[in-house]
Amino acid sequence: MSINNAGLLMYDLMSELYPICRSITGDGFRESLKILQREIPIEIHEVPTGTQVLDWTVPNEWNIRDAYIKNSAGDKIVDFKQSNLHVLNYSTPIHEKISLAELKQHLFSIPEQPNWIPYRTSYYRENWGFCVTHRLLESLAEDEYEVCIDSTLQAGHLTYGEYFLPGETADEILISCHSCHPSLCNDNLSGMVLATFLAKSLQAAPRRYAYRFLFIPGTIGSLTWLSRNEDKVQNIKHGLVVACVGDPGKSTYKKCRRGNAEIDRAVIHVLQHSGQAFEIQEFSPYGYDERQYCSPGFNLPVGSLTRTPHGRYPEYHTSADNLDLVQPEYLADSLSKYLAVMDVLEHNKKFLNTNPKGEPQLGRRGLYSALGGRKDSNQYEMAMLWVLNFSDGEHSLLDIADKSGIAFSALREAAKALSDCGLLIET
Amino acid sequence: MSINNAGLLMYDLMSELYPICRSITGDGFRESLKILQREIPIEIHEVPTGTQVLDWTVPNEWNIRDAYIKNSAGDKIVDFKQSNLHVLNYSTPIHEKISLAELKQHLFSIPEQPNWIPYRTSYYRENWGFCVTHRLLESLAEDEYEVCIDSTLQAGHLTYGEYFLPGETADEILISCHSCHPSLCNDNLSGMVLATFLAKSLQAAPRRYAYRFLFIPGTIGSLTWLSRNEDKVQNIKHGLVVACVGDPGKSTYKKCRRGNAEIDRAVIHVLQHSGQAFEIQEFSPYGYDERQYCSPGFNLPVGSLTRTPHGRYPEYHTSADNLDLVQPEYLADSLSKYLAVMDVLEHNKKFLNTNPKGEPQLGRRGLYSALGGRKDSNQYEMAMLWVLNFSDGEHSLLDIADKSGIAFSALREAAKALSDCGLLIET
Amino acid sequence: MSINNAGLLMYDLMSELYPICRSITGDGFRESLKILQREIPIEIHEVPTGTQVLDWTVPNEWNIRDAYIKNSAGDKIVDFKQSNLHVLNYSTPIHEKISLAELKQHLFSIPEQPNWIPYRTSYYRENWGFCVTHRLLESLAEDEYEVCIDSTLQAGHLTYGEYFLPGETADEILISCHSCHPSLCNDNLSGMVLATFLAKSLQAAPRRYAYRFLFIPGTIGSLTWLSRNEDKVQNIKHGLVVACVGDPGKSTYKKCRRGNAEIDRAVIHVLQHSGQAFEIQEFSPYGYDERQYCSPGFNLPVGSLTRTPHGRYPEYHTSADNLDLVQPEYLADSLSKYLAVMDVLEHNKKFLNTNPKGEPQLGRRGLYSALGGRKDSNQYEMAMLWVLNFSDGEHSLLDIADKSGIAFSALREAAKALSDCGLLIET
Repeated sequence: MSINNAGLLMYDLMSELYPICRSITGDGFRESLKILQREIPIEIHEVPTGTQVLDWTVPNEWNIRDAYIKNSAGDKIVDFKQSNLHVLNYSTPIHEKISLAELKQHLFSIPEQPNWIPYRTSYYRENWGFCVTHRLLESLAEDEYEVCIDSTLQAGHLTYGEYFLPGETADEILISCHSCHPSLCNDNLSGMVLATFLAKSLQAAPRRYAYRFLFIPGTIGSLTWLSRNEDKVQNIKHGLVVACVGDPGKSTYKKCRRGNAEIDRAVIHVLQHSGQAFEIQEFSPYGYDERQYCSPGFNLPVGSLTRTPHGRYPEYHTSADNLDLVQPEYLADSLSKYLAVMDVLEHNKKFLNTNPKGEPQLGRRGLYSALGGRKDSNQYEMAMLWVLNFSDGEHSLLDIADKSGIAFSALREAAKALSDCGLLIET
Repeated sequence: MSINNAGLLMYDLMSELYPICRSITGDGFRESLKILQREIPIEIHEVPTGTQVLDWTVPNEWNIRDAYIKNSAGDKIVDFKQSNLHVLNYSTPIHEKISLAELKQHLFSIPEQPNWIPYRTSYYRENWGFCVTHRLLESLAEDEYEVCIDSTLQAGHLTYGEYFLPGETADEILISCHSCHPSLCNDNLSGMVLATFLAKSLQAAPRRYAYRFLFIPGTIGSLTWLSRNEDKVQNIKHGLVVACVGDPGKSTYKKCRRGNAEIDRAVIHVLQHSGQAFEIQEFSPYGYDERQYCSPGFNLPVGSLTRTPHGRYPEYHTSADNLDLVQPEYLADSLSKYLAVMDVLEHNKKFLNTNPKGEPQLGRRGLYSALGGRKDSNQYEMAMLWVLNFSDGEHSLLDIADKSGIAFSALREAAKALSDCGLLIET
Repeated sequence: MSINNAGLLMYDLMSELYPICRSITGDGFRESLKILQREIPIEIHEVPTGTQVLDWTVPNEWNIRDAYIKNSAGDKIVDFKQSNLHVLNYSTPIHEKISLAELKQHLFSIPEQPNWIPYRTSYYRENWGFCVTHRLLESLAEDEYEVCIDSTLQAGHLTYGEYFLPGETADEILISCHSCHPSLCNDNLSGMVLATFLAKSLQAAPRRYAYRFLFIPGTIGSLTWLSRNEDKVQNIKHGLVVACVGDPGKSTYKKCRRGNAEIDRAVIHVLQHSGQAFEIQEFSPYGYDERQYCSPGFNLPVGSLTRTPHGRYPEYHTSADNLDLVQPEYLADSLSKYLAVMDVLEHNKKFLNTNPKGEPQLGRRGLYSALGGRKDSNQYEMAMLWVLNFSDGEHSLLDIADKSGIAFSALREAAKALSDCGLLIET
């Protein structure tokens, strides 16, 4: 599977998931996980309504069949079947005739983007409403309107998916993506398909680390997983929250709360050597589920690698976050960076130079060009010299990469050659 | 008392103090303290001449009634009664007739500013002299001049004022201003009136800290206080030297010797959030009495918050440092910054998030907006999230302010709300 | 000996050394050391071929009498006697007639610089060759060529020179220069003559440190010295590798592996106060013999102070690195910087302020101007105040220089004055 091909396959999978009306609970979430199960063996967990999860309680389960607004002439002027964003997510059921004034109390639009439907939710306070284009809202005449939301909000379950890929050690890398948004592509169908294809790639080869992939509803899902798995938390050595990985914007990394964790340094290294523009953000306690993983009682080394972050692109949380915004090439590029980060983490080790006094004679070992007097050593020789000089038991390959400005992959290759001839041993 | 009103009152008080001829000892200093005693209950200390204070000795007391230079026609061409700057401060008495050549040995002027009178002193080497405009000096013809300085320099006392405002704890904040300059407004009548009004403001409400206000002669005064109060020094947790706080220049903070003390961080925070230009200077062992407080044997966390620092404005130590240079609005602005710094110090505490695993559900406590999907959380919610995330017992509110870029006052308000509902306890 | 005169003398000495064909072993190296022995009493060491030195083995000794290429008409078209760069250094002997095609396998030139002869070596793989201008190479017609290299490569010795100048303590400063290059001026005849004149200057006065000057073949020479002197390595407290010190480029300092050693800070201080442009480079495990001194098993605080570093000037390792490129004024300037660095190291001590509480009264000790009120203290007074304030047993004079921005020499003078009147004692 080439990266470009992976981009196309991720885009196709996203397209299949796009029409489904997901929420933090309900059948849309279950249906989405079942589609992903065709790709990787995700385990599905069901947690009953009312379960206490840390400071929170699992809410009622929400399901919806249909919703519309009709004018007095019987025309459906708003139709859930045309876009599931039209319904305020978690709306309670209603079927009434009401005046324009009353209707307007329950309409949400974006005046600055009159042709886009906003995405709004009301998970924890019972309410009903419709999200509409501002153009439509402005056009509404005095009339009697029939509003219908055919939903249920009652005891049920919170659903989440988990795929645990064992490694050679008990140490884990956590990959978490919120999977609760309805027809929104970048946020976060892009994250769901990237996590899926990252898992497919990683399971194909031996791994030092175990990998845990979580497909969860935002906030309540990470709280639920943390609440049920406090014993496993200590195994998580690194982690990334995956979201907004399919838009054309530059890659953006938000550091974990610790601020200089190995995951932070690995991602920054990969972005610095990507040849592309990128942005690094300090941790802040806002955003996606890193808020929970990085809460002070857990303080996990979990950052977030996105393209344009949440709230910073105009299409964010609107109907314009669609299959046009996200493109296969950006999904592919994001996946390649995630794979490069995992490669750094997998191979970031400390070595010991077995011949630390003076340089070993690389020439007689066939590792060095014989003709002297040249202006500069080549990149491969430089990588060997850097690895030898700083393999003192204190510096990892990533430390050496940071010091030298040489790509991790080149240092890793040099370390392999030096290890093969006994000049280096792993500590 | 509004800040603007305080500016006017400080200006009026400064205007009353302006004509008095102060020096490092003498009746002018006493008279000035008595005027300030109308505002706050300053205690006046008298230390006899000859008292050993650290490496120094309290000098003779200097007093002056009059001084003039007359030409042979009997015209007073220089008159102390017109400006007390005309006399070299600490001049020994003299009444003689002398030639122009001899007179010129005792005249000081500023060639670059021919209309200004310089301010010069000779505290520790007996001398007499007159400070004149360069214009006058240039106009002097060959003549016999009558010079008269009707001063006394003899055993007496060094006088200083102290106002101790107790707090809930024994920890102290030191506010020190040199009060020994004659008719010079910015340096340092502005500091004397600001310290006075700062005291008036602080005494009106409960305080965690005790505040110690010192009105002292420069150098010898701080040495005297330190010498007599070595047992109290350990209580000083923060301090500021107040000077040059009434000119139009931008606020300037000179750090204490420690360089990253809480006082340094508090002042820098206030200036960063002032919406105005400002300047931060590293500590140097030159300037005002911070030189003594920050000598290595004391090394107190005492910085200096001024507007344009000493020596950096052309009017410095000249007759142009007058009631035109200093204006009520700048005094008021400086006072507001001092008050803001004290507010930070008073409320800079560490808290512990009582629900550190995952975020607490703010919504059900009425602390959070219910409608999801918005682009950004508001400032108040952000303040709560920052306080919760970093209240791990390690970070003070000022630490969190530095990390978040949020104003201390907003974090303090958030901490209050979170404490009120039990989500935070003070450590 | 003035610095300017030293520049001329260094240039003359370099001119005398220039024609000699040096290599990493052989009589050219010995002859060069004998010339230097006229200036300083260098001890000459001979290490037999085959001696194991750390991971390396001392190679066969190479000597050469003559070499040329003749065309079929008998014209010498390449002649070792015109430039010893014409022979691939360490060429094995040959005397044959060969075709143009075969000859070209053994010719080295620089296409981008068609009039310059390159410098190439083949120390550790037996080979023969000629280095020629690209102009000549391009002009060669089909012909039978007589190639003759009258060299020997057989068991003998590696030669190096060492001059140990004792100091008051056992602590040493290492000055090392590679001395193995044939007719190349900047790299590294300039280093050899600078090291020689540095030694001449230092031996003229008492020294806290001992100084060890090494004149060695590059790489194999430093490995040999380190291998034979492991017991002395611990005495080396600071060191510099001297090379490329005679070209017009700006001074460049490459830090030692430790990165913030005293030698690093001393050199940076000198360059910062030189009033000239300069460049600071982080350590990298490439370059000259600092590669060996800074190998992880030794990790000595040895940096390298050059002008334009190796490989960064177009004349590097070509016949254009000649007596025109290097000039007396640049040699003199480099020497003055080396001397300034040694002066910092010799006098960088920590003092204790004996009067740490408040400032001591400098005036009554005659150390301070008596007239108050001036805008600024002068530089000498500032130096005294800085030294007094930071002589707390923690800060060396160099630390204080870094903090204050004041030149080390001024602080040293202030420390002397303060020590003389008992206000400072050495810790």
